[in-house]
Amino acid sequence: MSLNQPGEFALIRRLTRNFQKKSGVIGVGDDAAVIPGGSHSLVVTTDMLIEGVHFRRDWMTSREIGRKAVLVNFSDIAAMGSRPLYLFASIALPQNFGVRNAAGLFRGMEEVCRQNGTLILGGDTNRGGLLTVSLTVVGRAEGRRVLRRNGARVGDSIYVTGTLGNSALGLEALSRKKKGCVAFVKAHKEPPNRLAVGRWLARQKSVHSLMDISDGLAGDLKHILEESRVGACVDIDRVPLRPGFLRQAYALGRDPDGLSLGGGEDYELLFTASDGLRMPRQIAGVSVTKIGIIRPARTGLVWMKNGRPYRKRIAGFEHFY
Amino acid sequence: MSLNQPGEFALIRRLTRNFQKKSGVIGVGDDAAVIPGGSHSLVVTTDMLIEGVHFRRDWMTSREIGRKAVLVNFSDIAAMGSRPLYLFASIALPQNFGVRNAAGLFRGMEEVCRQNGTLILGGDTNRGGLLTVSLTVVGRAEGRRVLRRNGARVGDSIYVTGTLGNSALGLEALSRKKKGCVAFVKAHKEPPNRLAVGRWLARQKSVHSLMDISDGLAGDLKHILEESRVGACVDIDRVPLRPGFLRQAYALGRDPDGLSLGGGEDYELLFTASDGLRMPRQIAGVSVTKIGIIRPARTGLVWMKNGRPYRKRIAGFEHFY
Repeated sequence: MSLNQPGEFALIRRLTRNFQKKSGVIGVGDDAAVIPGGSHSLVVTTDMLIEGVHFRRDWMTSREIGRKAVLVNFSDIAAMGSRPLYLFASIALPQNFGVRNAAGLFRGMEEVCRQNGTLILGGDTNRGGLLTVSLTVVGRAEGRRVLRRNGARVGDSIYVTGTLGNSALGLEALSRKKKGCVAFVKAHKEPPNRLAVGRWLARQKSVHSLMDISDGLAGDLKHILEESRVGACVDIDRVPLRPGFLRQAYALGRDPDGLSLGGGEDYELLFTASDGLRMPRQIAGVSVTKIGIIRPARTGLVWMKNGRPYRKRIAGFEHFY
Repeated sequence: MSLNQPGEFALIRRLTRNFQKKSGVIGVGDDAAVIPGGSHSLVVTTDMLIEGVHFRRDWMTSREIGRKAVLVNFSDIAAMGSRPLYLFASIALPQNFGVRNAAGLFRGMEEVCRQNGTLILGGDTNRGGLLTVSLTVVGRAEGRRVLRRNGARVGDSIYVTGTLGNSALGLEALSRKKKGCVAFVKAHKEPPNRLAVGRWLARQKSVHSLMDISDGLAGDLKHILEESRVGACVDIDRVPLRPGFLRQAYALGRDPDGLSLGGGEDYELLFTASDGLRMPRQIAGVSVTKIGIIRPARTGLVWMKNGRPYRKRIAGFEHFY
C-alpha cells in the first residue's frame, strides 16, 4: 500500500490520532498540548517544515524559511493564548546546503525568537536528506486558563483576525510567476504574528474558544464545531479580505471564495465570544471581524452569500507544492 | 559552498553552537536543556532520525525504527538523571511508505513509551520527503539537582555502564552482510534503556558528572573533560566488551579498539564519582565498570594499553551510512 491515494492518508491520520489518544492525552486536537503546572500551565507545540512539502528553496531565502518555521509554531502558541518561552530545533541540512545558507536559516530563527523573548535552548543539527526544520516550542499560558477549541457556545459570535486567503493567493502567484502580488507573496512567506492578540483573548472571560487558521477557515472552523458540538452560520460576505485580493484572484483565474475560505496558511486567529464582550475593532493593532454566529449542532454549518445559502464545496487545504 | 567537506560541517556546528549560546541558554552542551521548576526541574531533549543518515529502511523494520527513535531520546533523558514524562513527535512519511509501515512505526514508539510511563502528547505527521522522526521528550529531574557534564573533579573515578562498541560492530556486520552477529546487530537496532541507572546516579551525592555515549567513548569523554576543565587517564584494557566482541571484530578485519572507543551509538552512560561512593558492580541490573581516573587539566587525556600510553588516533563517530 502506498500513501498516494488520499484515502490512505486519511487512514494514517486516524492512526496518528489513535496513537495520541491511547496514550492518555491532554489537549490533542488542540493547537498545542497542555502540561498543567503550578500558577501557570505550560503549553507545548511541535511543527515540522519540509523542503518540497511546506516550502521551496527556489522561492524563499534561507532566512525567510527560518523565520517562517518559527512563526508557524508561534501561531499554535498564540492559539493557546500563551507566551513562547523556549524553542528547540531539530534541523536536517542537505549536502548541497552551504554555510551561508545555514547561517541565514539560523539568523531567521534567531530574529523571530529575539523579537518575542523566546530562548533557543537546544537542538540537533543533522546533515543529509531534504532541508527539514522541526521545531518544538514550550510556552506559558496566561494563568491557569487555556483557551481550547471545545468551548464554543450557542449564541457566541464568530470572529477572525486580519484578512484571509492572502497566503494561498501568494502561493498561486509564485507558482504562476505572476507579477504585482508582492503583498500576497509576502503573506505566504511570512506568517503574521498574533501572539499579543492570543494573550489578550485568553484574558477575556467572554471568549470561549480559540484556534489558529492553518488549513483554511472552512476546515478549521469545523474543528471548533465538532469539538464544541455546535453548529454555525457564517456570512461569506463578511470574511475580511485585503485590498486588491478580489482583483488579483480574478486575474489569476481563481475563485476568491476558494482561496479565502479553503486556502491554507493564513495563520490568523479564529475565536468565538459571547456578546458580554464588546469586541474592539482592533486588538493589539490587529483588526478583528465578526463573520458569523454559533448555532445548535442540529443546524450544522451553513455558509451564506448575498443573503442565500452557499452550496459550492469548499475544499480543505493540504500542504503540498 | 557545500557541506561535503568536513571542515565546513565543523563550521555549521560552530554556527549552531553560537545560535544556541547567544540566546542565553541553560544546559546547551548537555544532553538536554534544563527548565528550572518548583520542586523538580524539567529537562527537554530533541533528536531527529533521518532515513539514510541514521537508519536504513532495508535494514530495520518500521517498528524497530520507531523503538530506536524513542530510545535514543530516552538516552539523553537518562543522562540527565530524569524521568521521561511526555513525548512529542514530528514525523515525515515518504510517499511510498505504506499504512502497514506507518502502523508499525507508531506501534514501536507506543511500546517504548508505555513501558516507561511516558505520555505521547502531540505531534505533526507529514507526507513526503525521506522518513524522518523528530522527537522531543520532556522529563522531570529527580529533585532540583541535574547531573551535568561539567562537574567532574580531579581524583574522580570514571565509569561506564554495560559494554561498548556493540552497535558499531553490529552496523559493520549489517553493511558487510556478515552472519553470526545477531547480538551486535540487535545492539545497533535497539539502544539500551538506562533510565533507571541514570535516576539512581542522580541521587548519589558522590556522582559528579554524567552523560550518555552516543558518538563514541573517546569523543564523548572529551566533552566531560573540556566542560569540567580536567584531564583523565583511561585504561583501554578495562573498557568492558561483550563476549565474542574481539573475535567478531577480527573476523570483520576491524580494529576492536577503534570500534569500542570510537564507534558510535552505544547509548551507555559515562559518569565520574568520588571514592566516597562504594560503586556497586551493578545498578538496576546493569553492570558498571571503572575505566579510569580524572586528573588535572594539564595532563590532558591519556589512554593506556598494556601498561603503556596508547598512541593510535581514535576517530570520532559521525552518523552516516
